[in-house]
Amino acid sequence: MALIVQKYGGTSVGDLDRIRNVARRCVAARKAGHDVVVVVSAMSGETNRLLKLTNELSSKPNQREQDVVVSTGEQVTVGLLALAIQEQKGKARSFLGHQVRILTDSAFANARIKSIDDKKLRESLKAGEIGVVAGFQGIDEEGNITTLGRGGSDTTAVALAAALKADACEIYTDVDGVYTTDPNLCARARKLDRISYEEMLELASLGAKVLQIRSVEFAMKYKVPLWVKSSFSNDPGTLVCEEDASMENVVVSGIALARDEARVVVRAVPDKPGVAARIFAPLADAGVVVDVIVQTPSHDGATDVAFTVGKLDIDKAREVMSKAKKAIGFKSLEVESGIAKVSVVGVGMRNHAGVASKMFQVLAKEGVNIRVISTSEIKITCLIDEKYSELAVRSLHDAFELEKA
Amino acid sequence: MALIVQKYGGTSVGDLDRIRNVARRCVAARKAGHDVVVVVSAMSGETNRLLKLTNELSSKPNQREQDVVVSTGEQVTVGLLALAIQEQKGKARSFLGHQVRILTDSAFANARIKSIDDKKLRESLKAGEIGVVAGFQGIDEEGNITTLGRGGSDTTAVALAAALKADACEIYTDVDGVYTTDPNLCARARKLDRISYEEMLELASLGAKVLQIRSVEFAMKYKVPLWVKSSFSNDPGTLVCEEDASMENVVVSGIALARDEARVVVRAVPDKPGVAARIFAPLADAGVVVDVIVQTPSHDGATDVAFTVGKLDIDKAREVMSKAKKAIGFKSLEVESGIAKVSVVGVGMRNHAGVASKMFQVLAKEGVNIRVISTSEIKITCLIDEKYSELAVRSLHDAFELEKA
Repeated sequence: MALIVQKYGGTSVGDLDRIRNVARRCVAARKAGHDVVVVVSAMSGETNRLLKLTNELSSKPNQREQDVVVSTGEQVTVGLLALAIQEQKGKARSFLGHQVRILTDSAFANARIKSIDDKKLRESLKAGEIGVVAGFQGIDEEGNITTLGRGGSDTTAVALAAALKADACEIYTDVDGVYTTDPNLCARARKLDRISYEEMLELASLGAKVLQIRSVEFAMKYKVPLWVKSSFSNDPGTLVCEEDASMENVVVSGIALARDEARVVVRAVPDKPGVAARIFAPLADAGVVVDVIVQTPSHDGATDVAFTVGKLDIDKAREVMSKAKKAIGFKSLEVESGIAKVSVVGVGMRNHAGVASKMFQVLAKEGVNIRVISTSEIKITCLIDEKYSELAVRSLHDAFELEKA
Repeated sequence: MALIVQKYGGTSVGDLDRIRNVARRCVAARKAGHDVVVVVSAMSGETNRLLKLTNELSSKPNQREQDVVVSTGEQVTVGLLALAIQEQKGKARSFLGHQVRILTDSAFANARIKSIDDKKLRESLKAGEIGVVAGFQGIDEEGNITTLGRGGSDTTAVALAAALKADACEIYTDVDGVYTTDPNLCARARKLDRISYEEMLELASLGAKVLQIRSVEFAMKYKVPLWVKSSFSNDPGTLVCEEDASMENVVVSGIALARDEARVVVRAVPDKPGVAARIFAPLADAGVVVDVIVQTPSHDGATDVAFTVGKLDIDKAREVMSKAKKAIGFKSLEVESGIAKVSVVGVGMRNHAGVASKMFQVLAKEGVNIRVISTSEIKITCLIDEKYSELAVRSLHDAFELEKA
């Protein structure tokens, strides 16, 4: 008898039949003798429909009010799922963020969970009920409704699992686990049985969209065993867990790709203390999310600073930099879109030399020009022309023999 | 400078343009120097859409969970209206039932308001904000979401007006006031400038669907001046208020019609104490809403009991009565659908004889057979064949000269 937190995303609850399917899975887990808490997202398309309403009313909607509107998506799903479970002779009770209660800060649209009161959920479990909790939403100290940002339901599930000291947190989605790379890009992609939190973090942040990155951080911090499973099959899925000795034998675990990036190069910046701050502070103020940052060694007292931004932020980044030209004192600005970011990730890399050089050789052999290189302890990232994306991913997948277990 | 509670129904907030229109009205009232609290319903069609989802999942959905689902309709509207007001440079803040907080009993789907905490709303008004409150919803002692039943937003508005000791409660709808009768039935129907709470109660309960009956009771109890106005015009509307001397000069204020009733006659019931209870207790247990009840004088130790039920409850009423036949000991049962209920209403009737006989004469002259008569201090009700509905209403309207102010 274990305590399990299950989470089902928007596709898994996309219509009433799918909600009935989720209900069957919850009831089956309960019948197998487990205590079950289930977290659900809004029905697919619903959050976008609601955001469209707020955006039609205002070009920059007040985020407190936007959260009031969009949080209804999950509220509808919990009520419907509780009903579907009851129809299948299960006991169920729905819980909203303010009912659990999931206390967050007041950063509307992107709130962070501060604490979870598990009292009501424990009472519900004790009464034999399946607790059906609305993902994505919380409440701040003032009683305002907050939301956790896109994919926030994953974080709700992991945070609940941590608060309840659950034996496992199962994230059900429309894929059956975490793959060595995107199977749509590379037919030889292989499903991983296990992956470390650290690797998952790198893969998530680099564009593998299976899990919200903050949920993985949360799971790592509280050591919550995290399963990625398909809600449409009985495949055991992938376990995201603490690194162990066997994992270190695997040099590279996966290859991540993020498209639609743009590279900004700020040329001939005076190489003085504080200059990086003068570049990135106005970008942050303007809400531009900067990803990879690279600074080249200085030459004649000046240096080049390159960074990437998402496609949607290109114009804003250009505008901010142009305005700040005098304050920063750079010579010229280059903005180039159509950039992809390809990364190899693996905890084993720490103990194995030569991963980087092998990556560069593979790309060189395929004629792929590397625009920027950036590395961390467990990943190597190269910016390349977007048109080489698939070629790069497939060649690297072959070269590191990721199709083999 | 007054404190005004405004309420807009589903049609008035049916799309984004209409929500903008409501925002303009709220902002205008604020600019005129008033403190404004606005209560809104779900966008028209939304509550039915949500109920359809719950009813597709379950033939008898758990009402706690159904309330979780349907209460989202109003939640969406308050967020959107707050945004629309902000777009028009007004200050606004949305409030849900649990935020105000509107405490109710735990009768899900049909909860009653127990108390309202006006602290947060007062703070909001003090900060110059328009308080945008979700109608129809509350929260019980346990923190469960409850709803107040169809038309419950009217009650929310009146209850808030009472709690805030507002100077007026304005109910905006798609008609511009209360009429002497339904203008769709009778072209000579006249809009009333004023009407007493008592008359409005009779008119509402008899089928004039302008206001939810419970909201009128609430207004009467707390002496809240209640305006019925159109959200699409600037007509002053109708004031529902305490009876005053001038009102008593008007013998008949209006004529109400309710269609789609069925008449049930229980024949030859033994005329003994407790027999009415034996008839109506099982009906109440089965959830059948009984309207007019008439018992004829007994004859040979037996009496006939007649009552009306709504069209949708006919089968249930027949079933319940048949099952209870032995316990009640009646001889036969007659069920007849296609019945309409026409009533003349007026506080002046108390001091004027002859209203009843005039009503009967008018109907007789038109050849309308009266099936059952029932009277109260300020109304006379006749059940007639549904096919005579319009004829009866128009003849009575003419006979009592209601077209004249």
